[in-house]
Amino acid sequence: MEKISKAVVSRLPRYYRYLEELRQQKIERISSKELSKLMNVTASQIRQDLNNFGGFGQQGYGYNVSYLYEEIGKILGLNQNHKMVIVGAGNLGRAIANYGNFKNRGFEITALFDQNQELIGKKTAEGEILDIKYLYDYVVEHNVDIVALTLPKGPAKEIADKLVACGVKAFWNFAHTDLGLPEDVLVENVHLSESLMRLTYRISEKTQK
Amino acid sequence: MEKISKAVVSRLPRYYRYLEELRQQKIERISSKELSKLMNVTASQIRQDLNNFGGFGQQGYGYNVSYLYEEIGKILGLNQNHKMVIVGAGNLGRAIANYGNFKNRGFEITALFDQNQELIGKKTAEGEILDIKYLYDYVVEHNVDIVALTLPKGPAKEIADKLVACGVKAFWNFAHTDLGLPEDVLVENVHLSESLMRLTYRISEKTQK
Repeated sequence: MEKISKAVVSRLPRYYRYLEELRQQKIERISSKELSKLMNVTASQIRQDLNNFGGFGQQGYGYNVSYLYEEIGKILGLNQNHKMVIVGAGNLGRAIANYGNFKNRGFEITALFDQNQELIGKKTAEGEILDIKYLYDYVVEHNVDIVALTLPKGPAKEIADKLVACGVKAFWNFAHTDLGLPEDVLVENVHLSESLMRLTYRISEKTQK
Repeated sequence: MEKISKAVVSRLPRYYRYLEELRQQKIERISSKELSKLMNVTASQIRQDLNNFGGFGQQGYGYNVSYLYEEIGKILGLNQNHKMVIVGAGNLGRAIANYGNFKNRGFEITALFDQNQELIGKKTAEGEILDIKYLYDYVVEHNVDIVALTLPKGPAKEIADKLVACGVKAFWNFAHTDLGLPEDVLVENVHLSESLMRLTYRISEKTQK
């Protein structure tokens, strides 16, 4: 497959989300025009984006929702199973473990880890919370692909470094810091406070108008 | 003040985060070169970005950390108080309430709301969880600026519509849906599953290389 531009890739999860909803509503076909209305983007943008993958749409006939959903899922790597552990079993870690429809999308959250003695051993809906001292052996033994870091910035960097030494290649980072890991390690940051600041910026900009 | 480009604005929260750390470390001055090394962006990018606000840096002398921190904070609207309520008092809502350093940044989380009878009345570190039926009167009486929606997509849209009718002008939306609100209402979306899909895309892209 040809290399897809970053801009298109960044839009795929949103397509995937809408297609999932359509599928749940048992809608089998949708035209670029209808999808455009629903998603509030132009129909020509949709056609251009989806043309990258070729052959999904037919003129005057629309897109096959299930097919497109599956194909975009494959491009997003969602046809593969991903083993994930969560480091930090506080509210955020448990929220992440419960968020979305992980199992149906090929994510398997195999364990949560924490250093807080009050949490260790607790059984949650997502499994038992384990002592962080077992984390490093665990990721090796269980071939963990993705580590979600839902812990304060203080220990995050050190833990991430150790996990990289254990072979972990992908992090979903909620800690309020940049991890500064080697270039071949993938990091997707969710800096929530930055998102909130973008909102307050826009509030302040509007007030000054 | 001149209109600052979106690209620059989108980088400001990250500057703010680094400056906050420097401040906590009692560092008074920093050169664009040092800041560049720390943030892993070019010194020329930093100079260009910060030149937008004028007068923060002095040649050969560096930036005054506290001053720059305060000024960027003002631009980001963090010098104003923001009253926020959280709708959805599950793990995610409580995680958000605890996240970061809200109080020091002018955010006041005045209440959490939920419709779950088991949660209503519970006292958390962030205050009592109130019945969602009081939400609409509450936002009017307390002049709430920002509503964080940390609840499933099902009810999110209807609740947001009602809040807009009550005069709420800014949402921090974690619900797994686009709210489709009027254009003068500000919405900052945090679609966590989209962030995770960007990660799995990159994993899958790397595997195929």
